[in-house]
Amino acid sequence: MDGCLFCRIVAGEIPATRVHEDERTVAFLDLFPASRGHLLVVPRAHAADALEADPEDLAACARVAAELGTRARARLGADGITLQTNAGAAAGQTVFHLHVHVVPRYADGPRMLAWQPGAATPDELAAVAEALRAD
Amino acid sequence: MDGCLFCRIVAGEIPATRVHEDERTVAFLDLFPASRGHLLVVPRAHAADALEADPEDLAACARVAAELGTRARARLGADGITLQTNAGAAAGQTVFHLHVHVVPRYADGPRMLAWQPGAATPDELAAVAEALRAD
Repeated sequence: MDGCLFCRIVAGEIPATRVHEDERTVAFLDLFPASRGHLLVVPRAHAADALEADPEDLAACARVAAELGTRARARLGADGITLQTNAGAAAGQTVFHLHVHVVPRYADGPRMLAWQPGAATPDELAAVAEALRAD
Repeated sequence: MDGCLFCRIVAGEIPATRVHEDERTVAFLDLFPASRGHLLVVPRAHAADALEADPEDLAACARVAAELGTRARARLGADGITLQTNAGAAAGQTVFHLHVHVVPRYADGPRMLAWQPGAATPDELAAVAEALRAD
């Protein structure tokens, strides 16, 4: 897509430090890494986010993310791996081409708290479940 | 697996508020929701995390997570969706059966900062990429 940063990286028009590519996906290092080895997996085909993408492209990104997470654990000494993708500005997305973050986590690294556990009443949970179930 | 909380939920031995199930996956509401609609997608087959799981189970969880995220956006009025899975205690994992968090995000909700953007020199990026590329 014209003007999409990650489409231009996929096309090779903008340089990136690639660590993997295949028919459906390209993976490259994040320029502002949360930790050593932080990388992104994107589909070659443009899609704004995980909800808009071809489900097979999302699945391919997830498989590649796990494989690269496994390598980061084995080769970089990561103690854990977070895989994350954000859909929508309200979720913190800033580049609107699906990307799965692979964030190596280190036992002595910063705590990266994703959220504070909350609470919900049984009635609230029942209402939410009713809304989410297939028709 | 004996004693695994999520295996027991999958087996129906422990109650959970299910919102989806299919051949490979079960999805149910998180009891300590970060936000309204926070749910978990797990594979029926036990695997400790995304790196250990059958890649097809991880792919299935990702597809279901996106589908339920789409529903949460349409039916709960979420403004964005975060999909996340943590592998290893150092990544914040507490139940050691793969689970993909689907966290609806709301424009007026709390900012859930996953990490602080960092920095890396070109040499550091090159060394990391060398370690991560396939042999």
